[in-house]
Amino acid sequence: MSQENVTPDLARERSKATFDVENLAEFMIGGRDRLKRKRFLQNIAIQDPFFKKQKSWSFCSVEEQYDMGLSKSIYIQKKLQEMGITDMQEAFYYRECAAAHENSPLGLHYAMFLPTINKQATPEQKKKWLPLAENYKMIGTYAQTELGHGTFIRGLETTATYDPKTKEFILDSPTLTSKKYWPGCLGKTSNHCVVMAQLYTQGKSHGPHMFMVQIRSMEDHSVLPGIEVGVIGNKFGYGTNDNGFLSFDKLRIPRENMLMRYSQVGRIPRENMLMRYSQVSRIPRENMLMRYSQVHEDGTYVKPQNAKLAYGSMVLIRSSIVSDAARGLAQACVISIRYSAVRRQTEAYPGGEEPQILDYQTQQYRLFPLLASAYSLQLAGKYVFNTYLEVNDQIEKGNLESMPELHALSAGLKAFSTYEASAGIEVCRICCGGHGYSQASGLPKIYVDVVPGCTYEGENTVMMLQTARYLMKCYSRAKQGQKLPGFVQYIGQNLNKKSCMSEEVALGCLVMAYEHRAARLVEAAAMRMQSLIQGGKKQHEAWNGSSVQLFWAAKAHCHLFCVKNFVDAIQAKSLSSKTVTVMKSVCQLYGVHGILENLGEFMQDGFFSGEQVGYLQRKMLALFENIRPNAVALVDAFDYPDMVLGSCLGRYDGQVYQALYDYAKSAPMNQTEIHSTYYKHLKPLINPETTSDAMQFAKL
Amino acid sequence: MSQENVTPDLARERSKATFDVENLAEFMIGGRDRLKRKRFLQNIAIQDPFFKKQKSWSFCSVEEQYDMGLSKSIYIQKKLQEMGITDMQEAFYYRECAAAHENSPLGLHYAMFLPTINKQATPEQKKKWLPLAENYKMIGTYAQTELGHGTFIRGLETTATYDPKTKEFILDSPTLTSKKYWPGCLGKTSNHCVVMAQLYTQGKSHGPHMFMVQIRSMEDHSVLPGIEVGVIGNKFGYGTNDNGFLSFDKLRIPRENMLMRYSQVGRIPRENMLMRYSQVSRIPRENMLMRYSQVHEDGTYVKPQNAKLAYGSMVLIRSSIVSDAARGLAQACVISIRYSAVRRQTEAYPGGEEPQILDYQTQQYRLFPLLASAYSLQLAGKYVFNTYLEVNDQIEKGNLESMPELHALSAGLKAFSTYEASAGIEVCRICCGGHGYSQASGLPKIYVDVVPGCTYEGENTVMMLQTARYLMKCYSRAKQGQKLPGFVQYIGQNLNKKSCMSEEVALGCLVMAYEHRAARLVEAAAMRMQSLIQGGKKQHEAWNGSSVQLFWAAKAHCHLFCVKNFVDAIQAKSLSSKTVTVMKSVCQLYGVHGILENLGEFMQDGFFSGEQVGYLQRKMLALFENIRPNAVALVDAFDYPDMVLGSCLGRYDGQVYQALYDYAKSAPMNQTEIHSTYYKHLKPLINPETTSDAMQFAKL
Repeated sequence: MSQENVTPDLARERSKATFDVENLAEFMIGGRDRLKRKRFLQNIAIQDPFFKKQKSWSFCSVEEQYDMGLSKSIYIQKKLQEMGITDMQEAFYYRECAAAHENSPLGLHYAMFLPTINKQATPEQKKKWLPLAENYKMIGTYAQTELGHGTFIRGLETTATYDPKTKEFILDSPTLTSKKYWPGCLGKTSNHCVVMAQLYTQGKSHGPHMFMVQIRSMEDHSVLPGIEVGVIGNKFGYGTNDNGFLSFDKLRIPRENMLMRYSQVGRIPRENMLMRYSQVSRIPRENMLMRYSQVHEDGTYVKPQNAKLAYGSMVLIRSSIVSDAARGLAQACVISIRYSAVRRQTEAYPGGEEPQILDYQTQQYRLFPLLASAYSLQLAGKYVFNTYLEVNDQIEKGNLESMPELHALSAGLKAFSTYEASAGIEVCRICCGGHGYSQASGLPKIYVDVVPGCTYEGENTVMMLQTARYLMKCYSRAKQGQKLPGFVQYIGQNLNKKSCMSEEVALGCLVMAYEHRAARLVEAAAMRMQSLIQGGKKQHEAWNGSSVQLFWAAKAHCHLFCVKNFVDAIQAKSLSSKTVTVMKSVCQLYGVHGILENLGEFMQDGFFSGEQVGYLQRKMLALFENIRPNAVALVDAFDYPDMVLGSCLGRYDGQVYQALYDYAKSAPMNQTEIHSTYYKHLKPLINPETTSDAMQFAKL
Repeated sequence: MSQENVTPDLARERSKATFDVENLAEFMIGGRDRLKRKRFLQNIAIQDPFFKKQKSWSFCSVEEQYDMGLSKSIYIQKKLQEMGITDMQEAFYYRECAAAHENSPLGLHYAMFLPTINKQATPEQKKKWLPLAENYKMIGTYAQTELGHGTFIRGLETTATYDPKTKEFILDSPTLTSKKYWPGCLGKTSNHCVVMAQLYTQGKSHGPHMFMVQIRSMEDHSVLPGIEVGVIGNKFGYGTNDNGFLSFDKLRIPRENMLMRYSQVGRIPRENMLMRYSQVSRIPRENMLMRYSQVHEDGTYVKPQNAKLAYGSMVLIRSSIVSDAARGLAQACVISIRYSAVRRQTEAYPGGEEPQILDYQTQQYRLFPLLASAYSLQLAGKYVFNTYLEVNDQIEKGNLESMPELHALSAGLKAFSTYEASAGIEVCRICCGGHGYSQASGLPKIYVDVVPGCTYEGENTVMMLQTARYLMKCYSRAKQGQKLPGFVQYIGQNLNKKSCMSEEVALGCLVMAYEHRAARLVEAAAMRMQSLIQGGKKQHEAWNGSSVQLFWAAKAHCHLFCVKNFVDAIQAKSLSSKTVTVMKSVCQLYGVHGILENLGEFMQDGFFSGEQVGYLQRKMLALFENIRPNAVALVDAFDYPDMVLGSCLGRYDGQVYQALYDYAKSAPMNQTEIHSTYYKHLKPLINPETTSDAMQFAKL
């Protein structure tokens, strides 16, 4: 990034760094070549006059955002084609820069509609639909969630009833709550839609299946008879996406429109079906959970074959949500830490210079642990993704052993990371003081982009409890003397230990502490379950009555993973010794801060003594001082260009005040000296001889 | 509220309640008459066709929001006049309903500009300006914060240099960072402004003083020469307010425009100056911190007299922020808890009915402690306000003794409550699942209205450290054997105690636990300070090096207050025994949950045993079961009509799905079957013979 015009404060920060930023940046992205390629692609977007001429999204109405989103989306796809980019990761780098935090109105066409045809349709269906979809005659999306039904797919109410007389399915939305509601790209963009509906044939229900439904004319985009479709209205963010509703009034579609190659059945959580654009574009579609089912012409339902359960796609989607969340938090840290090095506030002693606010211990206390989290979560997302690739190879060879553990971990990590990142982004924003509240800071947008990750693709509590279910299984196996696989071996360990923590705060003692805490909370949850069942509760009542403790156990499990994975990651050979020294401090801070924030869970059984807690508290403050000189370099190493950050406060050159002022000047309301509202409301107030609407009304 | 059309689930919830909602609602608002009057006034707003015909704010662009905000604001003022309402609390009830969470573009005219003239101007100035301002010839605001300067008022850069030759002040913005930035109502609405600037006369600086500056013509609203003014651009929320920037190019104003009756001096924190509309409208202006200063015609500066420091206005503003935050959290609880009683999700066991999500223990774990917080914070705001009134009486009689304690408490409580409420509102939103992310839920708007409270009127960390400074003084007095006043008597107490906690979880043992924790953390912070000073650090370095622990101490102090005040409040005679039973559970939950969330701080010194922690954990789960049947009744008792909530999910009648659907149907994008974007971007994509802008560009 250009060194020109960098403020002295930021220049000094960078010169103080004790490690080579490039070394860390290469490590985080996965090598020097990839970093180079990423910069090359992002520079193309940065230089492109098409993006330069766009109005700031924050000055656009929701309709303008949608319009701009569609225009950019089409342009980006075109450019990727021109550049011959087919690698999903490369496309992501370009798009991340070209349309940062802007959800595409064509996203689900690429990420869900095309792949669904590819993978779920019969050869005949593919032959018919693929050319149309690839050439944008059909523009499609995927509709599952209903007004009254989300995570629980068996609760869906939309019906598809087979009529053997006409060889048609009758699609119907029998209730208000059965309307499809929330699917992206549905309200105004798509003319086709893959619809998940309850299949009925020969008087029997066969659970949710997928159907191809045309909803608008391919000629003039008008809505077809029997269909009601529109947007669901405005949201906290996602202005570029026309999330929609859709309902059917006994709409007849040919039998051939049921996706019959493979189809989804009832007991599978929806996480493997509904996928967001930014995520799925990077995910091989081969990994979808598939079974076989058909409806013959006479209405006979052919059950799906027993197919091996492949958790792959879920693991991948969740690992991508972990990475999305980590990226959002990292960007927020870049903005807040750079700004805190530029911003000076309140003389420390009478007549003294106003210090950089990053020198305040309280500011370090709020920001540095989040910086550590951002690194930890990025490394966690990376681990899950890479491990998936390995495990996938094993699955190809018929070895499913490692998948359940990874699957359970990824569910919990999805929840853990989105909670941590969302809350952390807001702390970063608040750490920017008043200016953080301006859209010019870029932070509100990052927040509203990341926070829905807590509820989509499986509500976070449900995710945590999925992890907990696996942990309970492991616990019972451990109690039966079975050996547990890999990372969960800590479960069932001896809990009568004391911490080895000394003043140095060794990484090994940190990991041991997290293992002990997780093991204890897993056991506590299992004991609670057991005692409720012994007290006469039914299984599901006992589960619900233990679910808070199950949640705690799952959270501790994920937290342990993040600590352990961080410790392992910084052993990498590609890191220089100087980088390792700095990253060790960051890693220690992650571990120490996490213990202090959840101290009771580490102390309840006397694992830590009060004295040891004192070590941790002093160490945390000492780590702030270690990290302080490298703070700006540590956020530089995330390597987000200004275009990705979209922030006046987080600029690489630190020229924040000029940028804020320029932003203000460009506001539409500043393009006229006197706003039209003056003539409507203020003038009649100042000169009451003329009278405004409001005043007239008041006189009625 | 109307019982018509209430969903069976909500009707059943209400019939299950074990206490009289009216009894609790009367208590919370301060009596039966006030509740009646509030409902009367809010019903006027609810029935008024003027408000009914308004478009939903969420479908308005920022410019439309500003327009609507101004129109509503003028209408509301007119109505209040017609109704002869002068009581600030009554006006607030009406406005809360008529313009819920909508910051008025005339707010600072009423709340800051008029009162400043009234209180800070000389009799001659008042005679000149008051009639003009009262008749809206002058529409004004107050400008203090600058682009580069916030909390630290002595750092302000705008100058007012007296020129004795022309008897004028020269107002100047010498730097980019000196531009006024953020003042409300400034960008487009006001034609006058009270400006805080550094006074220079006879070559000497005399610190910040106030000046009356005309910025726009009263005839045609054009911007006057020497002035640059505009909006600062878009924000996370506050769309109705034209927060602005303002700078001066050597602008000359007459000497008589310095507000000379009383004027503010340098060392006073800005919290007593910058006031938000919703708050200050309820605050008697007599309480402003005032001193005397003047500039004579020849340029002689007359120092302010020593006036008694009256912290009153700060206490009041902060108590109103506590109440604002509590109100936001309470409203979020109403929405999320009602919706959780309507929403059904995931059969608990195969074939079972989908339970109300409020029956899930994890949902109770997230929502019930927030409900308890909402009650606790409302009671805290009420206490500070009422105590202020008492203390103010004492001050009138010359007794300043109680003020410093209340002042320190209110600073910390402002920070404590805004942090708690902001984070809590987001949890409530996330507890509504996907629908919480829709603006139809009302929750995003509540959040963006409450969360800036963390940074305005004194940044929260600075506030907490103000409280800590007072606590350190108390600690040192206690160590010198002096008796401490009222509520801070716990400081310096014997720390070698153990908790009296038993399985019953007596309220007294809860209070004792919070006292012990706060006392210990105050001592720990003091010891840290002492050891740093003994190690050779300067006072300000030691302060900064202890500030994390000082923050912890202040937080513990505020938390203790909230617990103790809650325990005291539910002893009120007006509460029926049935209400007390329920409120005791809520109060216990507040105390128990707070301990478990901060457990390390209660355990580090062995105050609690592991066994006692087990009591608390089991009690928390048991309290969830106690509170569950009364949850809906407990939020009903906040008595917010649907118009205040502005939420499809939080409706009193529980008809959430119909409301969501109606909201969607009313979206502007649904008013046409085919969106204009289709013709611009989609049609050329589907039929590439025609070519869109974006595609053309791509071909360049």
